[in-house]
Amino acid sequence: MSRHTVRAAIIQHACGVDYEENLGRSIQGIEEAAAGGANIILLPELHTCLYFCVEAHTRYFDLAEPIPGPTTNRLGEVAAKHGLVIICSVFERRSKGLYHNTAVVLDTDGGIAGRYRKMHIPDDPGYYEKFYFTPGDLGFHPIQTSLGKLGVLVCWDQWFPEAARLMSLAGAEILFYPSAIGWDPADNPAEKERQRDAWITVQRAHAVANNLPVVTSNRVGHEADPSRATDGADFWGSSFICGQQGEILAQASADKPEVIVADIDLDRTDEVRRIWPYMRDRRIDAYQDILRRHIDDE
Amino acid sequence: MSRHTVRAAIIQHACGVDYEENLGRSIQGIEEAAAGGANIILLPELHTCLYFCVEAHTRYFDLAEPIPGPTTNRLGEVAAKHGLVIICSVFERRSKGLYHNTAVVLDTDGGIAGRYRKMHIPDDPGYYEKFYFTPGDLGFHPIQTSLGKLGVLVCWDQWFPEAARLMSLAGAEILFYPSAIGWDPADNPAEKERQRDAWITVQRAHAVANNLPVVTSNRVGHEADPSRATDGADFWGSSFICGQQGEILAQASADKPEVIVADIDLDRTDEVRRIWPYMRDRRIDAYQDILRRHIDDE
Repeated sequence: MSRHTVRAAIIQHACGVDYEENLGRSIQGIEEAAAGGANIILLPELHTCLYFCVEAHTRYFDLAEPIPGPTTNRLGEVAAKHGLVIICSVFERRSKGLYHNTAVVLDTDGGIAGRYRKMHIPDDPGYYEKFYFTPGDLGFHPIQTSLGKLGVLVCWDQWFPEAARLMSLAGAEILFYPSAIGWDPADNPAEKERQRDAWITVQRAHAVANNLPVVTSNRVGHEADPSRATDGADFWGSSFICGQQGEILAQASADKPEVIVADIDLDRTDEVRRIWPYMRDRRIDAYQDILRRHIDDE
Repeated sequence: MSRHTVRAAIIQHACGVDYEENLGRSIQGIEEAAAGGANIILLPELHTCLYFCVEAHTRYFDLAEPIPGPTTNRLGEVAAKHGLVIICSVFERRSKGLYHNTAVVLDTDGGIAGRYRKMHIPDDPGYYEKFYFTPGDLGFHPIQTSLGKLGVLVCWDQWFPEAARLMSLAGAEILFYPSAIGWDPADNPAEKERQRDAWITVQRAHAVANNLPVVTSNRVGHEADPSRATDGADFWGSSFICGQQGEILAQASADKPEVIVADIDLDRTDEVRRIWPYMRDRRIDAYQDILRRHIDDE
């Protein structure tokens, strides 16, 4: 009996000020991946613009667009042309003064299979996302496509095991994390490596703990901080695809545009879970306090 | 201002059929670690006996003991002698026909600071723990000692992010995982490495996701399966200590008895959390389904 496999690709690229150039880079990568037989494509977070959250300024809300809108229309055409599933990232304008950081899944017919609005919103120097993005209100629900049920999350979500677990419990077959994360140029090499390694490790662990493949994209390149409050960011690339035991199947460099591709065997999830049956043994009778902010001393 | 540090040690050793020899190995390692200035000691899971769960047989219940009992008394004396905190592992006889896989924390005065009864119980060929151990009924509560609040879990718990998170929310300063895990000698080298790496990765990720140090012990050596149903197990050692970003501070070999030691800076948790503030951003309004076994299609 043939196995249920997909060929996943990640388009890792740099981003600049020009929307057309950025979208062109995304589409060029998709065409290359399609030529290589890929059928599920993950783009980086906010891949049509600079990572504007480096500073808090109202002018950047002009970059937002509705869904459906220009980006999902253009990428929908690419998806339909090649019969691909594409996971793209959109600065979503939902209403006047209401914006989200949203991932959109385009199905092989070019239509919108579903969207995920980033639930966990970061906010720290150079990553002022709480200024721009209202926290997602759609919850953690995998999106059904013609190639499988996809657990799409976004960047900061990757640090939260709860998000991966909820997608897994709801039947996600693969976890996806479009990301935009980089180094503070002022940090020393050891700190930089600890951060990048922590980022890889925590996501590989979502694969391990849920017996699910994980596909994680990031951008590359240095982007300056127009406010000069920080030294900007060196986005660390390192996009990767790992299997159900967290084993790396493909990984990109830290600093170059790349298209990486890996075949993912979806049937391995059931096989691995038979001998590593975490889902059988979860103590759901004893997890209530997960819903608390902190468990203060009695 | 001086920083709050502890020197943690792990005693990695093999286990045989003789209780006195096994406990002697544990104590010898503790003495060595104490001589090196360690003040918190982690022993492997069920370190006074062979890993009897390789088969299911009623005779092994004779190995169980009460708490307090012979092992906690003996190790309590060692703890008091050197002013150490010792985390040991006991096959606990709680009542007639009621047994647990329990970790006991002995404080620097030799008294019992608290116990943790393994909450997640594995059961697969060669690891028939559900036959022996009633799942813990004490929940996930850190144990206060004179050296800090310790989040003590046991082996199979290490695959469940919920357990680490609950300990973290309740104020644990370090996570500890006494373990007994090994390879099926019949598996090929690539599968063995995937398993060992997954085991390391998922625990390092508990450090990352909770900004907490993790201390994980394991035994070494081959143990046969008296039932001959399996080829027994090659316990893979690899005990390790990692810091708040999952960075490895010390790691033992896969096959040799060793005492490993690392200084842990407990003040780093607050520092790392200031710039990686996951606890601030957890979506506790949207995690309810964590309490479900599975989210079935509507």
